[in-house]
Amino acid sequence: MPAKKVNPDLQKERNTATFNPREFSVLWAGGEEQYKEKKTLEKLFLEDPALQDDLPISYLSHKELYEHSLRKACIIGEKIRKLRADGEDGVDTYNALLGGSLGAAILKEGNPLALHYVMFVPTIMGQGTMDQQVEWLSKAWDCEIIGTYAQTELGHGTFLRGLETRADYDATTQEFVINTPSLSAYKWWPGGLGHTANHAVVVAQLYTKGEFRGLAPFIVQLRDSDTHSPMPGIDIGDIGTKLGMKGVNNGYLGLKNVRVPLNNMLMKNQQVLPDGTYVAPKNSVLTYGTMMFVRCALIRDTAQSLAKASTIATRYSAVRRQSPIDPNQPEPQIMDHTTQQLKVFPQIAKSIVFKTTGDGIWNMYNVISGEIEQGNLDRLPEMHALSCCLKAICSADATAGVETCRLSCGGHGYMDCSNFPTIYGMTTAVCTYEGENTVMLLQTARYLVKVYGQALNGEKLVPTVSYINDAVNQKKFVNFDGSLESIVKAFQFVAANKTRIAYEQIELRRKQGHGTEVAANLCGTFLTAAADLHGRAFLAQTAYTELFALSRNVSPALADVLKVVLELYLVDACLNRIGDFLRFIDLTDQDVTQLEVRLENCLKRLRPNAVTLVDSFDLHDRVLDSALGAYDGNVYEHIFESTKKNPLNKEPVNAAFHKYLKPFMKAHL
Amino acid sequence: MPAKKVNPDLQKERNTATFNPREFSVLWAGGEEQYKEKKTLEKLFLEDPALQDDLPISYLSHKELYEHSLRKACIIGEKIRKLRADGEDGVDTYNALLGGSLGAAILKEGNPLALHYVMFVPTIMGQGTMDQQVEWLSKAWDCEIIGTYAQTELGHGTFLRGLETRADYDATTQEFVINTPSLSAYKWWPGGLGHTANHAVVVAQLYTKGEFRGLAPFIVQLRDSDTHSPMPGIDIGDIGTKLGMKGVNNGYLGLKNVRVPLNNMLMKNQQVLPDGTYVAPKNSVLTYGTMMFVRCALIRDTAQSLAKASTIATRYSAVRRQSPIDPNQPEPQIMDHTTQQLKVFPQIAKSIVFKTTGDGIWNMYNVISGEIEQGNLDRLPEMHALSCCLKAICSADATAGVETCRLSCGGHGYMDCSNFPTIYGMTTAVCTYEGENTVMLLQTARYLVKVYGQALNGEKLVPTVSYINDAVNQKKFVNFDGSLESIVKAFQFVAANKTRIAYEQIELRRKQGHGTEVAANLCGTFLTAAADLHGRAFLAQTAYTELFALSRNVSPALADVLKVVLELYLVDACLNRIGDFLRFIDLTDQDVTQLEVRLENCLKRLRPNAVTLVDSFDLHDRVLDSALGAYDGNVYEHIFESTKKNPLNKEPVNAAFHKYLKPFMKAHL
Repeated sequence: MPAKKVNPDLQKERNTATFNPREFSVLWAGGEEQYKEKKTLEKLFLEDPALQDDLPISYLSHKELYEHSLRKACIIGEKIRKLRADGEDGVDTYNALLGGSLGAAILKEGNPLALHYVMFVPTIMGQGTMDQQVEWLSKAWDCEIIGTYAQTELGHGTFLRGLETRADYDATTQEFVINTPSLSAYKWWPGGLGHTANHAVVVAQLYTKGEFRGLAPFIVQLRDSDTHSPMPGIDIGDIGTKLGMKGVNNGYLGLKNVRVPLNNMLMKNQQVLPDGTYVAPKNSVLTYGTMMFVRCALIRDTAQSLAKASTIATRYSAVRRQSPIDPNQPEPQIMDHTTQQLKVFPQIAKSIVFKTTGDGIWNMYNVISGEIEQGNLDRLPEMHALSCCLKAICSADATAGVETCRLSCGGHGYMDCSNFPTIYGMTTAVCTYEGENTVMLLQTARYLVKVYGQALNGEKLVPTVSYINDAVNQKKFVNFDGSLESIVKAFQFVAANKTRIAYEQIELRRKQGHGTEVAANLCGTFLTAAADLHGRAFLAQTAYTELFALSRNVSPALADVLKVVLELYLVDACLNRIGDFLRFIDLTDQDVTQLEVRLENCLKRLRPNAVTLVDSFDLHDRVLDSALGAYDGNVYEHIFESTKKNPLNKEPVNAAFHKYLKPFMKAHL
Repeated sequence: MPAKKVNPDLQKERNTATFNPREFSVLWAGGEEQYKEKKTLEKLFLEDPALQDDLPISYLSHKELYEHSLRKACIIGEKIRKLRADGEDGVDTYNALLGGSLGAAILKEGNPLALHYVMFVPTIMGQGTMDQQVEWLSKAWDCEIIGTYAQTELGHGTFLRGLETRADYDATTQEFVINTPSLSAYKWWPGGLGHTANHAVVVAQLYTKGEFRGLAPFIVQLRDSDTHSPMPGIDIGDIGTKLGMKGVNNGYLGLKNVRVPLNNMLMKNQQVLPDGTYVAPKNSVLTYGTMMFVRCALIRDTAQSLAKASTIATRYSAVRRQSPIDPNQPEPQIMDHTTQQLKVFPQIAKSIVFKTTGDGIWNMYNVISGEIEQGNLDRLPEMHALSCCLKAICSADATAGVETCRLSCGGHGYMDCSNFPTIYGMTTAVCTYEGENTVMLLQTARYLVKVYGQALNGEKLVPTVSYINDAVNQKKFVNFDGSLESIVKAFQFVAANKTRIAYEQIELRRKQGHGTEVAANLCGTFLTAAADLHGRAFLAQTAYTELFALSRNVSPALADVLKVVLELYLVDACLNRIGDFLRFIDLTDQDVTQLEVRLENCLKRLRPNAVTLVDSFDLHDRVLDSALGAYDGNVYEHIFESTKKNPLNKEPVNAAFHKYLKPFMKAHL
């Protein structure tokens, strides 16, 4: 970390911590080996002068930012090529560079080549036949061609059957003719599609022999490999500026009678024979796998966002002094205000719990994914339901948490040099992509209502919903003693009752004469509430199990800190849903007050270790990219340095004074 | 409104509405006269081609945006000059052009001259002597000088006594010597300070005859009136890019031995005599008035933000079709999904309630302000407490509401062409400026705890907190019958109990040996929760009283709609704080379910009039500036048009392809 003198308030925090941050840093990285690998990658990428910026990108126009991003993306691509040649391009490297913190340190508004690596190549691997993989993969790996993945349309997102783009097979030429028959059929959003990719996997409704066959993926060449000019029939461009992900070059694509050879349809799962005969896929659930994979990865991303935001807010809270607590004393570090602690510390705890849950569900995904490969689909619905609601909850909570951290830094959090606006833009996007959050919760709820009916019939449910069996058998929750275990149990009881109500409300609507689907729509808000509690009960359970397990394997000093984190997380989570707790469990006003006092107490106990805990997330200053959150804590100096880079400040008098302001001021003299 | 063909789904909504939107538009504008005036101003400003943009400003760099903003600000200034010459520059005109919707239509990221009109001129009027007003005001009104207001510093915000900038009076030359003695003393944030203003009111700690005298305002010339070069001793510039308010030219200012004449201190309230004798102000509460004035105005601004966001989301929800409810039917308007209604409709209701409350509190402010002028300060603490918590609640809820509306539009809400990102940036800023929200809530809570003690002593409280008297006398809330009136009463009962708990917790800490201030800090989260409920109880009460009153004076058709709005607002507000209700009032699980079913029912009843209700906010398409929210509802066409303006799309192949991508792709061939 930098050699500059550390702000004394921050140094004091580090001197008085009760545990060794390196111990947690290694855990956070996943072990000693991963920790070292992380440091090696950071050195390789972050110390390369070609990947450093003199001018903060917030000063660039959209067009300049694109050119800047493409330049850096190509440098990263060249480095990946070299790592690959040396056999050092593991999955972790791609994760770090394309989805992870290291990638964000280099291209914080996103990489226009990312979708090439994370969607185009994997789609060919997953959906192409062996022959197709031979034909396309090496070119794609070597970046002789650059691809993207085009599915969502201007008028159609979540509901895939609604997609309008169509591919008609012409047996006479053995080609597909692909069209976007209307404006709302235009492909919209794919990263890199605007001006970067020259190929795409285009998802279209397949017709052969005049019959509709369902969706299929086609490799389409978009631009000439030499001149990069759009191919005939291709209408293509960048969709424009956005809240975040500003460097991704999201694009639109219209296709007018674009012909591609028969072999450009990816045919691992379904086939079209030369005469147009259609061979349907054996198993339509396979695509669930990819979606679950992505959602599990997103949970870890949300943990990372919160880790960044809470690191910045915690360090700033140690350095900033404001508003005396005792009027006879100087202004304290704002971290000494209980209200400030309540804003920031729960976000630290959530980062840790989301990370732990993300790791856990990742392992679960790998197990179940193995079972699926063996043809055993038993746990697929359970896993699908869980990944949907966790994606929704973690992204929503992380988004809110990032904003809470920003607002906790007052006006300074509003400046781009804090990096909060960018972190926010990247985090809130997760609420919408890869399955919009409300749709996700409804998917989970559909599963919950189904298994609730099974529980009523006396069926024994699978592990992650077995608490519904318990609640069906035991109508009243007894012995809420405030222990962490009873908070977890209470969460499950509450979740089961939210599902009960959703189930009952749907039944009621059906009895009133509505069909099941209409009844479910009328009960939409009951359903999303049930799914929300299901996810939160799972998070509480996982936090409890995993953090306890963890604390048994670390030094006593770190174990003590982890226990405070766990208690803070659970008490805060409980108070955030206290209405549901009071609704289903007999708790008095005094019980609630006790929980509130306990929350205050957790904050007080975490206070001495807060800075060291975020230090141990081990986020490089380049990853944080924040004047408020740098390791050395020289907040005001960093803010001021950032103004010196502002192009407006390069001239003492801006040309607009002479052009507009002076004539206006002198007009009536 | 535009002559283009209206989207048929939107037209259908308008055809089936049960009330006449113009009736509500007139009410919303404040009456027939104000409605006509609004239309006249819109014509004058929005039809001026010089104030229209070919290129959306999101494509500009920070520097380009500044130059663009200053150009338009000067055109607006010239028009104001003309209106003023014609005697047509009423307060409403300034409000509309500088703080309101019309100003946002022309300079949606803010106006670098705004602080000249809304802070510099009023400060001279409010704090200058008659002689000083004669000297400075005409120059300021004529814009011969452009000023700003410099108070906040890089290291100091809310706590004014912590400001470091100092002014030492030098009797030998009859000048003040002004200095920012450290980096953290630099003035930070004033709008227009960067490169626009050539004067500022600088707030500094005053020293005369070597003694500290408190804060005082000084007029300081920052830049040469002819060359605009910074004056000697002045270090000045733009603070850089931000989440929003991107066109405001917020600046920083360092002063090194800057000398200003004795008469540049604004001396209406306090004086320094030529020999350095200090004459203290008679009344230190006068500054409360301005702060209350601004906060009351902000409540109306938050209503306007929500009105914009909910208009965009409602129209989009009528046009967008997605995800069949019944699998055998086509995709419905997303507004038919109950979950979508729950996102958008409460924001419509909140716009109306915040507007109504804002108008009400504005009238209250005027009454109390008159009393203060007469020397009667009785109601000042009550009004201060109310304006603080309402500013905090309305800004926080509006911010959350804008984001809910944005997220309800899926990915398209993420694009700048939706205008949500800008509305968000402008709205969330209100949470921080003019008193950070947590600090605001703590101010209110301090008052509540004080009056709670008075109520315990049997004292009769003033009207806005008299519900605390009731609650102290009646420990149990009886007869919650679900009527709107009982929801309002219950809100007050709950608020009183939250204050009780805050009071009790502070007392407990004091008994444990903490001083009052430390005890209050430890109980910070209890205090903010009490203030939050106090404000919400006031909002509930006002909504109930004012909307009922309103509905008696309008057509039966409109009255019916307003009643649904009121019920939706109250039931939703109650469910959002259901934990507090269950904590203090005996409600069963079934009672809560009934409230939830009732909420669903309110949504269903508002559904047929939702589009017409937002139409009647009468927001000009230029004010909305949204491809998703235009009056004609041609969403996809407008989105697509916006991509055609994207500078990246002006060339089919970007230069970065030849420069970076092609060499990268061909490197290994």
